[in-house]
Amino acid sequence: MTGMPAPGALAPHPDRLLPAEPGVRSIARRLYDAVRDLPILSPHGHVDPRTLADDVPFSDPAALFVTPDHYVTRLLHANGVSLSDLGVGHGPLPEAEARAVWRRLCEHWPVFAGTPSRYWLESALAEVFDVTVRPSAATADDVYDRVAERLTKDAYRPRALFERFGIEVLATTDDPCDDLAAHAGLAADPSFPGRVVPTFRPDRYLEAAAPGWADAVARLGEVSGVDTGSYAGWVAAMERRREHFRAHGATSADHSHEDVGTEPLDDPERGYRAALAGTATRAECVALRRHMLLEMARMSCDDGLVMTLHPGVRRNHHSPTAERFGPDTGHDIPLRTEFTDPLRPLLERFGTHPALHLVLFTLDETVFSRELGPLAGFYPSVYVGAPWWFLDAPEAVRRFRRAVTESAGFRRTSGFIDDTRAFCSIPARHDMSRRLDSGSLAQLVAEHVLDEDEALETAVDLVAGRPREVFKL
Amino acid sequence: MTGMPAPGALAPHPDRLLPAEPGVRSIARRLYDAVRDLPILSPHGHVDPRTLADDVPFSDPAALFVTPDHYVTRLLHANGVSLSDLGVGHGPLPEAEARAVWRRLCEHWPVFAGTPSRYWLESALAEVFDVTVRPSAATADDVYDRVAERLTKDAYRPRALFERFGIEVLATTDDPCDDLAAHAGLAADPSFPGRVVPTFRPDRYLEAAAPGWADAVARLGEVSGVDTGSYAGWVAAMERRREHFRAHGATSADHSHEDVGTEPLDDPERGYRAALAGTATRAECVALRRHMLLEMARMSCDDGLVMTLHPGVRRNHHSPTAERFGPDTGHDIPLRTEFTDPLRPLLERFGTHPALHLVLFTLDETVFSRELGPLAGFYPSVYVGAPWWFLDAPEAVRRFRRAVTESAGFRRTSGFIDDTRAFCSIPARHDMSRRLDSGSLAQLVAEHVLDEDEALETAVDLVAGRPREVFKL
Amino acid sequence: MTGMPAPGALAPHPDRLLPAEPGVRSIARRLYDAVRDLPILSPHGHVDPRTLADDVPFSDPAALFVTPDHYVTRLLHANGVSLSDLGVGHGPLPEAEARAVWRRLCEHWPVFAGTPSRYWLESALAEVFDVTVRPSAATADDVYDRVAERLTKDAYRPRALFERFGIEVLATTDDPCDDLAAHAGLAADPSFPGRVVPTFRPDRYLEAAAPGWADAVARLGEVSGVDTGSYAGWVAAMERRREHFRAHGATSADHSHEDVGTEPLDDPERGYRAALAGTATRAECVALRRHMLLEMARMSCDDGLVMTLHPGVRRNHHSPTAERFGPDTGHDIPLRTEFTDPLRPLLERFGTHPALHLVLFTLDETVFSRELGPLAGFYPSVYVGAPWWFLDAPEAVRRFRRAVTESAGFRRTSGFIDDTRAFCSIPARHDMSRRLDSGSLAQLVAEHVLDEDEALETAVDLVAGRPREVFKL
Repeated sequence: MTGMPAPGALAPHPDRLLPAEPGVRSIARRLYDAVRDLPILSPHGHVDPRTLADDVPFSDPAALFVTPDHYVTRLLHANGVSLSDLGVGHGPLPEAEARAVWRRLCEHWPVFAGTPSRYWLESALAEVFDVTVRPSAATADDVYDRVAERLTKDAYRPRALFERFGIEVLATTDDPCDDLAAHAGLAADPSFPGRVVPTFRPDRYLEAAAPGWADAVARLGEVSGVDTGSYAGWVAAMERRREHFRAHGATSADHSHEDVGTEPLDDPERGYRAALAGTATRAECVALRRHMLLEMARMSCDDGLVMTLHPGVRRNHHSPTAERFGPDTGHDIPLRTEFTDPLRPLLERFGTHPALHLVLFTLDETVFSRELGPLAGFYPSVYVGAPWWFLDAPEAVRRFRRAVTESAGFRRTSGFIDDTRAFCSIPARHDMSRRLDSGSLAQLVAEHVLDEDEALETAVDLVAGRPREVFKL
Repeated sequence: MTGMPAPGALAPHPDRLLPAEPGVRSIARRLYDAVRDLPILSPHGHVDPRTLADDVPFSDPAALFVTPDHYVTRLLHANGVSLSDLGVGHGPLPEAEARAVWRRLCEHWPVFAGTPSRYWLESALAEVFDVTVRPSAATADDVYDRVAERLTKDAYRPRALFERFGIEVLATTDDPCDDLAAHAGLAADPSFPGRVVPTFRPDRYLEAAAPGWADAVARLGEVSGVDTGSYAGWVAAMERRREHFRAHGATSADHSHEDVGTEPLDDPERGYRAALAGTATRAECVALRRHMLLEMARMSCDDGLVMTLHPGVRRNHHSPTAERFGPDTGHDIPLRTEFTDPLRPLLERFGTHPALHLVLFTLDETVFSRELGPLAGFYPSVYVGAPWWFLDAPEAVRRFRRAVTESAGFRRTSGFIDDTRAFCSIPARHDMSRRLDSGSLAQLVAEHVLDEDEALETAVDLVAGRPREVFKL
Repeated sequence: MTGMPAPGALAPHPDRLLPAEPGVRSIARRLYDAVRDLPILSPHGHVDPRTLADDVPFSDPAALFVTPDHYVTRLLHANGVSLSDLGVGHGPLPEAEARAVWRRLCEHWPVFAGTPSRYWLESALAEVFDVTVRPSAATADDVYDRVAERLTKDAYRPRALFERFGIEVLATTDDPCDDLAAHAGLAADPSFPGRVVPTFRPDRYLEAAAPGWADAVARLGEVSGVDTGSYAGWVAAMERRREHFRAHGATSADHSHEDVGTEPLDDPERGYRAALAGTATRAECVALRRHMLLEMARMSCDDGLVMTLHPGVRRNHHSPTAERFGPDTGHDIPLRTEFTDPLRPLLERFGTHPALHLVLFTLDETVFSRELGPLAGFYPSVYVGAPWWFLDAPEAVRRFRRAVTESAGFRRTSGFIDDTRAFCSIPARHDMSRRLDSGSLAQLVAEHVLDEDEALETAVDLVAGRPREVFKL
């Protein structure tokens, strides 16, 4: 075999993730060539806008690639490394500790075999930081030094990377009470041509059974200037904050609750006041949230913010870890999910509303062929969201296309969403998606289901057309 | 690449849907060659028997390919075309409007990329109507003219197509109160050698909570000559109508309810009378239906009609559309489904009865490997139904074979069912199935799991053996 | 095509189950070559230890390959052969009847096309018994004679086969009241170098609603010398018997209940006494079992026995068959299963305990990507069990790897478990797994996701590393 890398080399292959069969691969290569260098549209993610607003250099390789990335820390934890030894919950690490964290990653490199984290890390190290050796105990310090050295250069500061990565639009995810000063600063800065927009994410203001909810809605009232002591005020305050977000460029509102139930209450005022008074049962709090989610859809029809739903995850599954290290530390575990009946009240009311765009994400891939494809294949408002979390990996992405295309086609899907906190993995994630969709389309061409000109048009549409249309960018 | 079609040509490739890998494809081609021209057995579908009884020419391309086909109209609707602009609910369209509907389909051709509708339409247009250009805004009128011109010829009248398509048996789906005059007429007509048989479909007579149920069972009483004022009468009326259907050639009874529960009632007489009196709760009506479904299985043991079950769909998900355009307008959405426990009462009683054939269909493909394969791998009465609706597409069919074969083999599957209202798509649908099964079997040969002579025997059995045995044709 | 077998020959291909694409196959072949001849570690199965302790020759081909194997008898039953005609429930068969049973298998050979039973039978017949013709009505007697002749030789007695198969460790599955004399005898016998270890399987002692439970716990009390009249005694008796098992080499405890619920009771003493008194409801009995399963996890933390869970099956689905032929006769049918919430109480308490190894098996493959991968990708105690029953087949195993690797990697999986009663199928089952994993890894190499040296290391680890570490062998 020619072109085989030397053992231990880090040399991402130009054809990686393209289909193995030579005939299909050659078609896929042509499709991929057409989309590889298109600008990145990132309509949903978790980059901190202050990273770009302040343009402060990244501190060290551990802080960049390990500590904040729960995809990485969870698998190290499963393989016996404590979160504490990875710097989780510690704040900035002194150089020696950062180097020790980095070494733990490199020593455990084989545990990532076959995972997307390995793929993204490899791509970022090789393509952004010019690393040429595979991470291991033996190479850990060299790789650390190489990356750390690069991070001292201006070319590796966030804004320079933003430009180098070819990002056209980047959406962040923000609390409704956020003043969005970072976004305003970026928009007002003529030296930064990129577009960074906020996303309205009101989850905690809808979960009346969660600790601190009453305080949260009180603060929402203060920030919005609307008294949230009544149901009507709660709704009005939300509307005000959405307006604030829209004024700062937001195009979407994101919602992540245990389920997507959207049942209206007969008397929401009563339910809201009971929740504020602390007399509502857990079930009544859930009912209030389902009512409000329906209201949120109504607001999306009114103000045009795209509505995205990310349901079906048991957050903080391991309480001792959550108590010690906080949320988003790798033990949110998916739940069985359904959409057909829970979303029906919403879709009966607003499913054919011309202003509504409703993007449905799932961690339970059984719903792709059973529910999401069929829903998106009828309702003009519904789009099937790209594979989310745990499913944002090569085989899962291929399964997604095979499960959804036959009932909903390509046009009713959202385009790729990177959903990441890991800034340097953004280009690798988008590139992975482009490779995989090129492969899926090439397979259809090779089986004579599509002509190659149609596949090419589709490949470009998935990268450049879908996100723009679906997220109203 | 040789043999690539000119852009914009409509030229279905002779190897379409066969595996892309050249070695596997050559095996698949040999298998496909052995089954390609076998007669079509269509044991379950929705063609109107009067189409054949009256042999009236099809009116126009829109009425033939668009308006009545909810697979087509739903995806156009999702992509922004109103059902009303597709002629849904309008009755026959004047030529200018039919042409406008057709044009909307052609303009939106790319939205069908990767869907089976696109595949069936393409096959029918090219192979039945000699269309050689890809539908588009530019070619819409030419294609319309070509199809419309063909439709004026005797060779394109329903009976001529029936013969040209090589249909040996076609089963329709019929209301128990239907007099089956069309079937009788066809059977008595020496000029029509085809076999068109009815299927007993009593759903509405079992759903006591649905509007109009009491009237329906009253009419069932009239038609059958049995007083349906009592539970015993209800059962006896069903038995009489099944006998009427059997006398007209029916070999099966089809049932489609939300679930497949089959729990017996202690006192069905009381439950039935409460339902008639309008005093039964929704849950009691469901319990009555589950009891009656069990009775239906008992009848199948007695009279030999094959029992087919099509559960797990939320009908008319979008009420406003249902109210305006009626049922079967593209927004029936699948539900999570289970068989293991709900069917147990039925299978404990009748699962090993020598006269029972029970064919289980699903829209929830998770049950293929988890429940249907294991059930069909033990009970001699149970067969796994071919992929139904939303799953009647290339990738889903491949998944079905991979999910079911390992636990139930090939012999415990039903053979292909086209389940279609779209008469001209029948040959394309059966051909698609033959191509896909040839590909699946070729894969097993290429991996040395089966010898080629065994694969060949299996391929023929799936087309010519299974439907005949399973549906008692 | 060269190398094609003569029709009717039984000649397992050296490349069987490796990927069909030539480039990928050549990589797979290199990986497979490295693991093909490694010793067999079988940490979970159902071989009777007395088979080896007594080393009595196997009686005849039917008793070896048909009658006790419910994988085989179920599919023959589905295809019209009664269990009684297969010798099920009859005890040893006279030669003429054994031959008749064998003939029924051979006559029905095509019904096994595409199933793993066919694959295992074929491998065992060809590779262990030198059979060279495909079973059929015509060859049934010849094949019977060939196998029967071999069975008379010393080389075909259980211990000789154990050695020939290269089995290093074999775990059996045993009742807590078993004295483990067969295991003790084997361990004490210097002429038998193999390692045969028991597994603690206490299911029936946890199911208080099942007939005979009170007698069972009474007997547990006798055998353990602890009074099981109280909850504390019940727990202590379990601990004693686990200690007995550990003293005889056990490394794991296996649990198979309808669900994996692990909710603690406030007052287990009261629940236990009500169960003993026969006054507990069915729900209270289930609650007691869930409490005790949690206790079992606590014991595993204390004594180090690996905890394996096999939930989600409706046992004895067809009561008439169970009544006539007993359990394990082919009609245990899988149920929808979930782990995320039911296991949470256990994992919150013990999920990060350094002594706990928890191996999760499933018959519902939807949980692989949704729940098991994510759980094993965070909790250091959790491993994803290899595909179990109905899923222990080529396509299902491939799906398992694709579903789990991306969230949990390879290291968090259990390694192969043969789970079989069919002694002569053990090498074929392990070989099948090695071929399939070689193919999956080769695919990753061909797509440039792994380098070949990494794939090789992983292939060896899956065979030699995982079972040893996960099951503490």
